[in-house]
Amino acid sequence: MTSLQHVNPRVSGIRVSAHSTLQSLAAHITQQIMTGAQKPFKEVLDVSSGDPHKTGMKPISFVRQLMKDNSLPLDVRLRAQRLLEICDGQSVGAYSATSGLLHVRQSIAEFVMRRDDGVPSYAEDIFISSGSQRALMVVIKLLDKGGETQTGVLTPVPSPHHLPIILDETGVTPAPYQLIEDHGWAVHPEELHRALTAARRRCEPRAVYISNPGNPTGHVQDRKSIEEVIRFAAAERLLLLVDEVQQDSVHGHSREFISYKKVLFEMGKQYSDTVELVSFHSLSNACMGECGQRAGYMEVVNMDPEVMLFADTVLCADISTPVIGQLALDLMVGPPKPGDPSWDTHTQEILLIRTTLSQNAQRAQQFFNSLPGMSCQSVMGGIYLYPRLHLPSEITEQAKVLEVEADVLYSRRLLEEEGVLIGAGGTTDSYHLRFCILVPPHTLEEVLARISSFHLRLWADIRTLTEV
Amino acid sequence: MTSLQHVNPRVSGIRVSAHSTLQSLAAHITQQIMTGAQKPFKEVLDVSSGDPHKTGMKPISFVRQLMKDNSLPLDVRLRAQRLLEICDGQSVGAYSATSGLLHVRQSIAEFVMRRDDGVPSYAEDIFISSGSQRALMVVIKLLDKGGETQTGVLTPVPSPHHLPIILDETGVTPAPYQLIEDHGWAVHPEELHRALTAARRRCEPRAVYISNPGNPTGHVQDRKSIEEVIRFAAAERLLLLVDEVQQDSVHGHSREFISYKKVLFEMGKQYSDTVELVSFHSLSNACMGECGQRAGYMEVVNMDPEVMLFADTVLCADISTPVIGQLALDLMVGPPKPGDPSWDTHTQEILLIRTTLSQNAQRAQQFFNSLPGMSCQSVMGGIYLYPRLHLPSEITEQAKVLEVEADVLYSRRLLEEEGVLIGAGGTTDSYHLRFCILVPPHTLEEVLARISSFHLRLWADIRTLTEV
Ligand SMILES: Cc1ncc(COP(=O)(O)O)c(C=O)c1O
Ligand SMILES: Cc1ncc(COP(=O)(O)O)c(C=O)c1O
Repeated sequence: MTSLQHVNPRVSGIRVSAHSTLQSLAAHITQQIMTGAQKPFKEVLDVSSGDPHKTGMKPISFVRQLMKDNSLPLDVRLRAQRLLEICDGQSVGAYSATSGLLHVRQSIAEFVMRRDDGVPSYAEDIFISSGSQRALMVVIKLLDKGGETQTGVLTPVPSPHHLPIILDETGVTPAPYQLIEDHGWAVHPEELHRALTAARRRCEPRAVYISNPGNPTGHVQDRKSIEEVIRFAAAERLLLLVDEVQQDSVHGHSREFISYKKVLFEMGKQYSDTVELVSFHSLSNACMGECGQRAGYMEVVNMDPEVMLFADTVLCADISTPVIGQLALDLMVGPPKPGDPSWDTHTQEILLIRTTLSQNAQRAQQFFNSLPGMSCQSVMGGIYLYPRLHLPSEITEQAKVLEVEADVLYSRRLLEEEGVLIGAGGTTDSYHLRFCILVPPHTLEEVLARISSFHLRLWADIRTLTEV
Repeated sequence: MTSLQHVNPRVSGIRVSAHSTLQSLAAHITQQIMTGAQKPFKEVLDVSSGDPHKTGMKPISFVRQLMKDNSLPLDVRLRAQRLLEICDGQSVGAYSATSGLLHVRQSIAEFVMRRDDGVPSYAEDIFISSGSQRALMVVIKLLDKGGETQTGVLTPVPSPHHLPIILDETGVTPAPYQLIEDHGWAVHPEELHRALTAARRRCEPRAVYISNPGNPTGHVQDRKSIEEVIRFAAAERLLLLVDEVQQDSVHGHSREFISYKKVLFEMGKQYSDTVELVSFHSLSNACMGECGQRAGYMEVVNMDPEVMLFADTVLCADISTPVIGQLALDLMVGPPKPGDPSWDTHTQEILLIRTTLSQNAQRAQQFFNSLPGMSCQSVMGGIYLYPRLHLPSEITEQAKVLEVEADVLYSRRLLEEEGVLIGAGGTTDSYHLRFCILVPPHTLEEVLARISSFHLRLWADIRTLTEV
């Protein structure tokens, strides 16, 4: 990934159109005008593409009334006004630049700097996309070298359930490394080494994917663990792909969230000048939860500028990230400040979500540990529990006959008999459930009650069976 | 495309996860409950994935206030209410189903039936995506068979400027057919045949792409021309990809928009039972112009249901189309009715846009035809003019030296000297500009004035040169 040769030839083969060259030139001229250059005209008029709101056509009221309000707190109204001003044609209906609205990319860079106690962050290194998973797909697509040797990415077991589909779609080989359940699902460097060596027999591993806080494990890495992963990536020259989407939802008291980027920069120039890192974040995170808006971003560190241009090329096919989602990202990274009319409400809402997460986690964990044949590691953050099912052979045998994993069978029966949809699977030699705890407490109670009656019924049935 | 064998192996190789099987089962059970089936529970509770609004977590006010209003006309409020009810968790922040909200797909099917005088349309055949170009990319991706022989798609010259990048990204070969300028940029069947024969020498053409109303030509096909294309596709067993995004913007009086689907069904079962057709439409169309919201759809006709499942698989990687955009699509296909409080405003706004388009088209066309060295076909619809530049050899020679197309050079100088960004290029042996006429009339005047002074200056310079 450090040189252009290695970019997916299908991507580097995309021809730059005359249109996009002209568009870049127009953006450049606009920039010159804004910084005071004398031109024979005051602004660039764009009649090159069909983007009516950009050139000042009025949006249709029937659509816009869905999104308008005049009865809002002052800071919200001012913010809405300011955000609209940064949109082309002052409309959320206009396409934005491929990698996102520059203003929002700047807001994100400022947020990252505040979060990381001053480690510098630059708007040019931020790419906004239709969700963080889309950004991940873009990078994985760039990594794929095509040709005979398969490109590989080290992926955790268990992993977020969207990861396999992203790899499959891009044709990149997953090289699994095991998270250590008995250590609260921590990442172990020896296991990374083992997985890498094993992977090298069948593909060329070029990156390592980490989910921190862990989806679905709930593990949050400490500084030492992050340093170990960074040293591993540095030694093996692997690109680090860190999914930090749940950075706002550390709810245990034993850990706080530390970003990979911050640790990287605190490890000294030997690392911070060389290790290639991409960090992902999203509006779909626990506190915002605006998944349906489809907006996320990645920040790249130490990536070859020419490779970054190709990231732009791939994103170009999406034309632009939904603009309302981009504006909501701006709100996410720039929440109200003390004294702002919205500060109280906002702070209380965020606090309520964190409290709910933390209480739900404790409640559900105790619940699972109290059921026969279930155990659950304590979680430190994120939005999932990943309890283990110790299933009796009656069930695993039945699953074999039905040609389905035993935990998936458990989930299917739970769904059919009690109407609870819970995720399942993701490990190879043991059985687990994926339980999202980001639900209102009364829903949680209802869900636990249903699981309890299903589970106890199942266990009673088995006992009857074995007694016969 | 008629059989599964032919689907892109990279797509058919995507493994269906246990998670998505469980999700389908949950959707099925919910459906059963809605249609009255007796179950031991009243609703399915989903704790399988991190989508907080879906399970009833409250959205953060600071974000939502950007989009809320209580002071709206009654029908808008009722519609907003109804639309919210169809969202998971009654929130536009929840992920929707991969192919879109079922309610919106149904609204689209009803719109298509009304538009096509009763030709049936089914929600299952409608796929909502993040813009129509994304849907096009999904189909083209399915078409690509991988392996030695390149897959080809017949593409018009000139074509919309996004088409080449979509083909490049998917690795599919464009097989160009020429539109006939002297006939107002009509599609000629002999030319389709010629292009197909030529293409077969270097790839396996599997589809033909049509833009109607034409981008950037402004041509609108009549029934006879559409029948010719359909017969061609039927005879050659090609998939028809028709970009009908500008169907609402026929502004000339000589033509009306007729959909390919309607014509196909009126040609009799021989065609309507066999020809595979995909039609694209979008919220980015002329009247709505909500490009930044990223929502469009495709309707598929006669596509193998198993292939349709793969379309869903590819869309799955996007997770979901922005929900606000989907709701806006619902408004687009179901505008206010006479008597509704919003009817007057809405009807006037749409009328104003059409009038602006039609007057701008006439004005700009006359303007170009009055300049020395320019000519412009009359347009019938769409949002572009595509005037021809008859450039003197001084300029074409200069362009050769600079290694740039002469029309692109013209655009670049226009941009630098007068601050007008106009598209250029797209044909092989002549020079053209791409001029979007969907701009407020005062902007149009300003643009024309700047072009005029640039163009006349250029021509005067050349005359001086040749006189010396
Ligand atoms: C680890 C992780 N990554 C990504 C996402 C969200 O993806 P996107 O930003 O594409 O909606 C989530 C949401 O739950 C997540 O938990
Ligand atoms: C022919 C054509 N296709 C597609 C689009 C819009 O694409 P999307 O729906 O992806 O925004 C336009 C918009 O101008 C168009 O003119």
